[in-house]
Parts: sequence; C-alpha cells; structure tokens
Amino acid sequence: MGGDSGPGVVVAALGRSMLRHPSVRFLVHGDESRLKPLFAKRAKLLARVEIRHAAEAVRMDEKPSIALRRGRNTSMWHAIQSVQKKEAEVAISAGNTGALMAMSMFQLGVLPGIERPAIAALWPTRRGQSVVLDVGANVGTSAAQLVDFAVMGEAFARAVLGLEKPTVGLLNVGAEDVKGNEAVKGAAGILRDVTLPMEFKGFVEGDDISGGEVDVVVTDGFTGNIALKTAEGTANMIMHFLRSALRRSLLGRIGAVIASGAFRTLRRKLDPRAANGGIFLGLNGVVVKSHGGADALGFASALDMAIDMARAGVVSRIVSDLAGVSGKMSRLEGAAAS
Amino acid sequence: MGGDSGPGVVVAALGRSMLRHPSVRFLVHGDESRLKPLFAKRAKLLARVEIRHAAEAVRMDEKPSIALRRGRNTSMWHAIQSVQKKEAEVAISAGNTGALMAMSMFQLGVLPGIERPAIAALWPTRRGQSVVLDVGANVGTSAAQLVDFAVMGEAFARAVLGLEKPTVGLLNVGAEDVKGNEAVKGAAGILRDVTLPMEFKGFVEGDDISGGEVDVVVTDGFTGNIALKTAEGTANMIMHFLRSALRRSLLGRIGAVIASGAFRTLRRKLDPRAANGGIFLGLNGVVVKSHGGADALGFASALDMAIDMARAGVVSRIVSDLAGVSGKMSRLEGAAAS
Repeated sequence: MGGDSGPGVVVAALGRSMLRHPSVRFLVHGDESRLKPLFAKRAKLLARVEIRHAAEAVRMDEKPSIALRRGRNTSMWHAIQSVQKKEAEVAISAGNTGALMAMSMFQLGVLPGIERPAIAALWPTRRGQSVVLDVGANVGTSAAQLVDFAVMGEAFARAVLGLEKPTVGLLNVGAEDVKGNEAVKGAAGILRDVTLPMEFKGFVEGDDISGGEVDVVVTDGFTGNIALKTAEGTANMIMHFLRSALRRSLLGRIGAVIASGAFRTLRRKLDPRAANGGIFLGLNGVVVKSHGGADALGFASALDMAIDMARAGVVSRIVSDLAGVSGKMSRLEGAAAS
Repeated sequence: MGGDSGPGVVVAALGRSMLRHPSVRFLVHGDESRLKPLFAKRAKLLARVEIRHAAEAVRMDEKPSIALRRGRNTSMWHAIQSVQKKEAEVAISAGNTGALMAMSMFQLGVLPGIERPAIAALWPTRRGQSVVLDVGANVGTSAAQLVDFAVMGEAFARAVLGLEKPTVGLLNVGAEDVKGNEAVKGAAGILRDVTLPMEFKGFVEGDDISGGEVDVVVTDGFTGNIALKTAEGTANMIMHFLRSALRRSLLGRIGAVIASGAFRTLRRKLDPRAANGGIFLGLNGVVVKSHGGADALGFASALDMAIDMARAGVVSRIVSDLAGVSGKMSRLEGAAAS
C-alpha cells in the first residue's frame, strides 16, 4: 500500500516478476477493496497470488515509533509478520523506511552479535556494481559496527553478486593509515586481522566507489546516505546539463537524434531502477525496501534482489561469517573498555 | 615547487593571471636555479614578479608534523611567511595540503573564537556555484564548529560570490528536525537563532548540493571530503560512459561530431579547473590550495579566487560576523558543560 503511487505499481511489478521467477508465489497484504480490482484482468497472476486483507496502512510521513506502537493492523506489519511466521521468505515494501526498519527489528529480531542492522545499496560503477553500506540506518557508528557492516556486505556480495571472495574497502578521507576518525581506524585494525571469505583492501576514497575499486564499500549511515544522495544529485545534474546543451542548438538536436542509441545505452547504465532498493542486512529474515518513487520496473528489480537473497541464504551466511569475527570483536571491546 | 607537475604550471598560470589582474604583483618562492629559466622568455611577467630563493621544498607525501618541524627553509614556509610579514596578501600553493594547513595555522594563527580552520570548495550546481565546507580539514566536528563553518562560509559567499544574504544549509540525512547526529541538530538550534547577514534554511540532503538549493552547504570534514570526491567520481564515470557509448557505433560517432558544440558546453560546465582549489577559512590571512594535479588554467583559477578573497576582505568579514554569534556560542558551551 506504500510508495508514492500506491498498489498499482506493485501489482504491475508482480506481473513482471511472475514471468522471471516461475516458481515464486506472492502474498499481497493490503486493502482488499483496492487490491482486488487491480487483479481483475490478471487471472494468471492471481493464480500465484494470495491477497491478505489489512485494514490500515502506514503513512509515508508517520514517525517510526508511532507506526510501531499503533500499526498492528497495517499491511506493513502483516507483511513482516508473514516472514516471521515462515509463511513468506522475504518481505518487500515501497513504504516508510523508518517504520519498515522498526517493525522488522521488532518482529524478526536482530542477528546475534549485530548491534544494529544496516541498509545496503547497489551502486553502479565503471566495472559493474558494488555494494555500499550503511546508507542510512544509523547516524553514529563504532568500529565494531563497521566490522559488522563489512561482514554483512561481504556475505551479501557473495550470495547475490556471485563473487567468491569479494574485495572490501572502508570509506575514508585518504588512503593512508593515519587518516580518518577513530571508528574507521579501529575497524581497519580488526579487518586486517580476520579470516573471512573476503579480501580487505584497506581505505578507499569517495571517487573509488564509482571507480569500482572494491566490491563492498563500508561506511557509517550518515556519510553513506549523504554520499549516495550526492552521487544521485550529480548524475541528475549532468544529465540535465547534457539534455539542455543538446537542445540549445539545431546541430545539438540533430546529433542527439543520430546518436540516440548511444544515449539510450547511457541512460540504461545510469537507470536507478536497475539497482532499486535498500537491502536491510542484520535481521533474522530478508526485508527489502523499494524506493517510494519506483515504477513497476523498479519495484520488479527490488523483487529480483529479494528473491536472490532468499535463494542464496544471505542470512545464514552472515550468521556463519559473524562467528568468524566474534573472538576478535570481543578482544576489541575489551581493549576499548580497559 | 609543489603539485604533480612542478613550477612550470605555476609560471604559466602567472602569465594568465597577470593579464586578468593588471595591478597584482607576485612573489615566487622556490629553487632559483629551476625558476629563473622558466621566466627566460617572459620579460613582461618577470617585471611583475620577485623570485625569492628557497633551498628546500615540502614533499607531497611528507607528514605535516615533520614538514612543520623541519620545513623552515622550504618554499611553502616562505610563501606563508610573506603573508605573515604583510609582504603578500595571499599565499597559494599546489603542494601538500596537510603541511600547508599546519604551517598556515602555525605562522598566521587561527582567528579568535575559531577552534579549527576549515577547507571550503566551490561546487558546480544547476544554478551556478555553491560553497561547501568543510571538505577535509577536520575529521570530527562539534555543533559549535559547524556554526563556525556556517559563519565563515557565509562571509566567503558574500565576499567572493557577491551575494548580499547567502542562503545556508546544514548537510544531513533528512530534512526533518529529528534526523541526524547530535552535532548537526545542535548547530541547527544555534543557527536558527543568530542574527547574521545570511538566511538559514535548515537541513539539506546530498542531492540538494548539486541542485543548488542553498549557496553555502555546511558539513563536517569527513562527510564533506567524501561527498566531494564521490561527486567527482560520479561525474568522471558518467563522462566515461558517455564517451564509450558514443564511440561504440558509427551513428554514435557521427552524432558526437555534429553535436560537438553541445559536448563542449557540457565539458565546460563540469570543468573542475573552473572551481579549482581548497579555500582555507578561519586563518588570520588568506591561503588557497590548488589541486596538485592542476594545469595552468586550474592554477590561474585558484589565483583568481585568492585575489578576490584578498580584495573583498574575507578575513575581516569573518571576524566581524563571528562577533555576532559569540554570545550564543558561549551559552551553548555553558549548556553543554552543565
């Protein structure tokens, strides 16, 4: 029921997803009277869907704490509950991010050893895609939490991007060991030491993200969120400049028509819908947040990712990788306390 | 003597700057035996230049603390000293940023009431240019320091961008009051309250920077540095994708030739050389850092900015604006201490 355009987008996305994933079935939570008409001409899809009525919906601007307290009859609560009850393997929503995280933490629980879940994003790079996390779940982050993020990002990259031994970098203001705040320096010290199916590359800088220097970029949620939105803003500005430069002259317009195939390629490479969604990592279950403004293509990408995550067993991989660092983490906490 | 290409770039930039600023004279500090030949065929320029011999130069990879201790015979030390002795009004270097900041703080001193100087950058936006600070001088920043940055950025925007009452925003992960860490929330509380020649717009997000939502974007040096490099990396990636998409087909190549004027316009808009340089704010004097990789055009832009700053009296404007917030700041510090 969430997102800027409501359930119509979700149903259209299910139509795409149904073809891509023939064995997947869908529970659709929401207001029956609004949902049923949307399936009226989609008999094939309806055969794979079960509609579960929920009388209420979380508002996009609702405070997470209020949604958590009053939201037991909402579609969002029910969707997460179906994961908690093992009726569903993943939950996907285009609704209120904070409420989705609060309800997911409450109902599914956080994995043992993880302080706070993180939100990961897929980021287009020169070489393909990288995983960046945290992009907004936490505003202050300790060294131990950055290490958690590295483990979760590495497990995700192996499971969903299919990399055997992903490279991992810590986002910092310089590549030298002496640079940065205490959290990144502390996390680097631990990550150099751990034995995990990843290759720790040390510090990376802002321009290394789109350069594709590493498969997994680890950062705190404050910096990660700002970096992500700064990159989106920069891409939008450049495409705006490009369009207006081409429109300004007759030659520009002619050239644009002749080279239209090339511009389509560029737009496809930068299409935010291809990498739509915030991936919640660190929960005892899979939850994916689609952009509120996503269309059917974008929401279908979020579905793809969620299905891939469930199939690849991301959660159990994170659990087993966390076991590999827990000894080192407790030594760190001991050192910090002493 | 600094930068990736050495003093040849600086001398070529002085040739450009001499024409733009007919009344400006230049002190050039460095190894005489290397500098003199560069002026051999530039009699007109040499008439406006005084070469000051410095036997040594700070290395690009030298630790700032070491440069500060051992660097009294370097060209960088001498350049800053000439500002301290009032022989020059501004110092410009393409050398080691950390060493330049350390030597500037030591020789010129920090303005009363300022805890740490900041590095500001000019950022291309849809609407023109904005000032973003801090982009790298500090890794941890308090609410009071963010307020300092707002005052310094506002004074810079009035002096150099010629705005009467610049708009100022605090970079955050959301526009709502409850979002963000303690530093940004505390700074917003003070900035809403101060009476200064600026209009405080509250929180802005990463995509608002290139959107040109405000004239001055205030952030801590860790986030600001990463945001700046992320934007540069994104711009480079898109231009790379655009070039390779156009090259891939014959139609793409033909279209690119026909629309070449439009592409030149785009490149000019995004040319990092037009906004080259880190502006050191909060010192008792004007110091500008050119990118190490700048060419003559880029270094000349840094010279333009430094000359504008000196002419407009940025330092004295900051001093008088700081007086306007000092009462509120001490109340804040009292509140924090109690």
